[in-house]
Amino acid sequence: MSSILKGIAASNGIAIAKAYRLVEPDLSFEKKSVDNAEEEVARFQAAISTSKSELEAIRDKAREDLGEDKAQIFEAHLLVLSDPELLTPIEDKVKTENVNAEFALKETADMFVSMFESMDNEYMKERAADIRDVTKRVLSHLLGVQIANPSMVTEEVIVIAEDLTPSDTAQLNRQFVKGFTTDIGGRTSHSAIMARSMEIPAVVGTKSITSSVENGDMVIVDGLNGEVHINPTPEVIEEYKKEHARYEEQKAEWAKLVDEPTVSKDGHHVELAANIGTPKDLEGVKNNGGEGVGLYRTEFLYMGRDELPTEEEQYEAYKAVLEGMEGKPVVVRTLDIGGDKELPYLNLPKEMNPFLGYRAIRLCLDEQEIFRTQLRALLKASPYGNLKIMFPMISNLQEFRDAKAILEEEKKALQENGTDVADKIEVGIMVEIPSTAVMADVFAKEVDFFSIGTNDLIQYTMAADRMNERVSYLYQPYNPAILRLVKMVIDAAHKEGKWAGMCGEMAGDEIAVPILLGLGLDEFSMSATSILRARSQIHRLNQSDMKKLAEDVLKLDTNDEVIKAVEKAVSQV
Amino acid sequence: MSSILKGIAASNGIAIAKAYRLVEPDLSFEKKSVDNAEEEVARFQAAISTSKSELEAIRDKAREDLGEDKAQIFEAHLLVLSDPELLTPIEDKVKTENVNAEFALKETADMFVSMFESMDNEYMKERAADIRDVTKRVLSHLLGVQIANPSMVTEEVIVIAEDLTPSDTAQLNRQFVKGFTTDIGGRTSHSAIMARSMEIPAVVGTKSITSSVENGDMVIVDGLNGEVHINPTPEVIEEYKKEHARYEEQKAEWAKLVDEPTVSKDGHHVELAANIGTPKDLEGVKNNGGEGVGLYRTEFLYMGRDELPTEEEQYEAYKAVLEGMEGKPVVVRTLDIGGDKELPYLNLPKEMNPFLGYRAIRLCLDEQEIFRTQLRALLKASPYGNLKIMFPMISNLQEFRDAKAILEEEKKALQENGTDVADKIEVGIMVEIPSTAVMADVFAKEVDFFSIGTNDLIQYTMAADRMNERVSYLYQPYNPAILRLVKMVIDAAHKEGKWAGMCGEMAGDEIAVPILLGLGLDEFSMSATSILRARSQIHRLNQSDMKKLAEDVLKLDTNDEVIKAVEKAVSQV
Repeated sequence: MSSILKGIAASNGIAIAKAYRLVEPDLSFEKKSVDNAEEEVARFQAAISTSKSELEAIRDKAREDLGEDKAQIFEAHLLVLSDPELLTPIEDKVKTENVNAEFALKETADMFVSMFESMDNEYMKERAADIRDVTKRVLSHLLGVQIANPSMVTEEVIVIAEDLTPSDTAQLNRQFVKGFTTDIGGRTSHSAIMARSMEIPAVVGTKSITSSVENGDMVIVDGLNGEVHINPTPEVIEEYKKEHARYEEQKAEWAKLVDEPTVSKDGHHVELAANIGTPKDLEGVKNNGGEGVGLYRTEFLYMGRDELPTEEEQYEAYKAVLEGMEGKPVVVRTLDIGGDKELPYLNLPKEMNPFLGYRAIRLCLDEQEIFRTQLRALLKASPYGNLKIMFPMISNLQEFRDAKAILEEEKKALQENGTDVADKIEVGIMVEIPSTAVMADVFAKEVDFFSIGTNDLIQYTMAADRMNERVSYLYQPYNPAILRLVKMVIDAAHKEGKWAGMCGEMAGDEIAVPILLGLGLDEFSMSATSILRARSQIHRLNQSDMKKLAEDVLKLDTNDEVIKAVEKAVSQV
Repeated sequence: MSSILKGIAASNGIAIAKAYRLVEPDLSFEKKSVDNAEEEVARFQAAISTSKSELEAIRDKAREDLGEDKAQIFEAHLLVLSDPELLTPIEDKVKTENVNAEFALKETADMFVSMFESMDNEYMKERAADIRDVTKRVLSHLLGVQIANPSMVTEEVIVIAEDLTPSDTAQLNRQFVKGFTTDIGGRTSHSAIMARSMEIPAVVGTKSITSSVENGDMVIVDGLNGEVHINPTPEVIEEYKKEHARYEEQKAEWAKLVDEPTVSKDGHHVELAANIGTPKDLEGVKNNGGEGVGLYRTEFLYMGRDELPTEEEQYEAYKAVLEGMEGKPVVVRTLDIGGDKELPYLNLPKEMNPFLGYRAIRLCLDEQEIFRTQLRALLKASPYGNLKIMFPMISNLQEFRDAKAILEEEKKALQENGTDVADKIEVGIMVEIPSTAVMADVFAKEVDFFSIGTNDLIQYTMAADRMNERVSYLYQPYNPAILRLVKMVIDAAHKEGKWAGMCGEMAGDEIAVPILLGLGLDEFSMSATSILRARSQIHRLNQSDMKKLAEDVLKLDTNDEVIKAVEKAVSQV
């Protein structure tokens, strides 16, 4: 049976392939007493042995495709499976208590897991995670349930998941993943950002894809319209193949703009920059004609590891990006950790509302050594390009003054040591908290630039968690309240002769771009893969018309009215 | 040794009494094997029997002081202690496994608790809670650890707690509780609001009071300055007794203003109203000279019970408040549940950021039967007084239009049925989400009034959870960003001939009142106990001077600068 699910178009393009479910298996079981404990132990040993050969194959495949460090994870799992300190108590439990192997395994493993987790020691906590993973695998064999082994995928697939975490995506063999689709998430969730950086189509927030699709079902991900087709008819597949070809053609058309400047029809120039996470992303920036990096998210340097990155490691990364951009502007955002981005090794307490919590500049002004290390690395790298430093989550002027004072201190100390530091480094802020947008005129006197972070600005201004589907309808980028705040920020910057950019999702959005052009935004920073489309759109628009459009939509009452007005205006171009 | 802890002054006044710790006891133990199982069973039975007599005493005391429904809780606990289905397996476990009674009790009880909790049945879930409570009590006797029995307090005490939940406060014998002090929380936490409604001094957010004070230590709670003195010297106690007397004298002075109008020195009239939770709070409103109810928080009607209140129950409560206020205005806020206020029987899913989640009007527009029932009860009660209806958490105009349309539908249906409904009922909104403050000019054309909810408005505008101590320094009521938004709302209302009130904590704050008077706020709604002090303050101020002050502070850069400017201006009065 064919069916269609609606979701949120999170990454452009069309993908057609078989479904690959990356979901938590049902590993529930009941405690049972067994008559023949010896047989039960043998069944357990068989599950261990199957798990071992499976893990060996995965390890070898990972070594080949993903590199030695990913392979190490599975090596650690194999060690667990050979550890008599774990295996013997399980077998003993089966024998003395006459219980089923599932129960003996789970009880024993849980005991080790909670013991290791309770230790205040990162190494032991990782061992706990290893045991948990391995237990799942052995349980799956005992229960005859299939678990996903994403690194073993050897054909083209569409990944089906509730949500994709960074560790899920790290294990994917990207060569074969043609598209994503998930139950939850929105355009700004990790899955969505990941899909755009991999340049593969994605539809997120379908609510029920994992309960609608089996492994091997044929799936079409329509990332242009936010639809997923399950087991489509041959006619629909044919239709989509044509659509795919049309989209590829359009992309080829856009590709011709890679070295063109971004100028409106009536000659107004703006800068189209890219959001990046690591130096590796620079290739995409160049291929897509990025005129700069408008947001370098440095937190990836801090994630997926056991300890803080050293000053030297950070220096190398920043230097690589600055050199790679060959003198074009690079806006580096200082550490924005906390909220939905955790660093286990910092042992931050759980918060009731992490999005309104201890994160980003709040943490950096409190844990100053972390912050100072990053600033020194940035300052040392500054002679290698056109560095601009940006502080995230600034909510009041005192925070900016404090952060800037620390930067000045570190700069002075380096210079006194004879270290080379760039003469002029612009220092700006993210405007992503309503108070800062409202006070933009005051900030504009002291900062060198603003970059409007719409993902957070919208969620705070509307008081709606953008990751929560129950209120995602309130994540309204075109609500006149948001547009008014954006205008306040741009006007305040220009009044003081400063520039204003935007580095949220909105900067590359087809409805938003005409308004932002009209409001006079100077820099648009977006996923690299959106740049050429935006450039093509701006080439077709007159800035003077868009000024008028922006004035008009600011007088409207609701998000929907704004969308309609823009669609009407743009369709006339 | 004397010592002093600093915290947040949450309720005015001074209390001097012995400490009473209302904290979770340490009931940890290790699994042990026992040589003599019979002896261990006897030890278990002794603990059961001690627990029983203790519970009987508590039940009798509760019946006397707190009423039959509170006594029922303990009756249920006693039933658990006589249940062979629970006791027999525990004794069997001790005998067959030769384990200590603590382990046998905990394992067995946990099994029942998780069994009952997994059932989708409120009654069974309550039984799970009973078993959990009783297990704690028996464990405490097995381990020789003292647990708190707040209803058994028979002398004047200061309650020391990590935080106070609604169920903690329900069990307190209020007659003997002279003050509160807690580790966590801020001026708007439940503990703080409770203390103000009980008119007892409180200092919250001391971070470490529970680890600094033993039962019986002498404690002074200085709710005027936010200090807690632990085992003070006789001289300090003497000093504070004098201070207490001075404060009582001042209160007596303020009490003379109970029937006075609220007029500034230069003749500008404003309305001082009260925030209430139940009809019982009306006594405090009258004793403190409230000129109306500016915020009736209806969610208390929905809390602490197993199912939604009926239309009839609601009607009775609303009618009681309207009649009790004798024609003075009563602003009823429709259900604001979700966020930090949960209703277990609605089975709402856990959210990652509940403050940015599915709550208040969002839930009411979705679960319309709940909303319509409340609106019908309000409409039916409307002929008994001066009712104004207010929708909470409005973030965009569509929500207001939808909510108002539902109200109109219900009104029409009632009238067609011949039910009496007041002719004119003002319909307004809380302004507590930044988008709504920014769009106040647009809203003002359609609403009858605004009430600015500063508790939430501040936390969203600054993106700082007001319950999270790590970021509570960002909860800045005087940040010029907040004051600008407040001005926008007041100006927008006046431009359309509507009135603007405020029902957050800020409305009764001594620093804020002069600014708000200057900005032209029409109605100030606060804890009843703050009204007379605010009236006395306004009597001493010239509105024309405050207008100038408000203009000046709006130009300042930071929260601290505003505080200094107001203190300077007011000290000259």
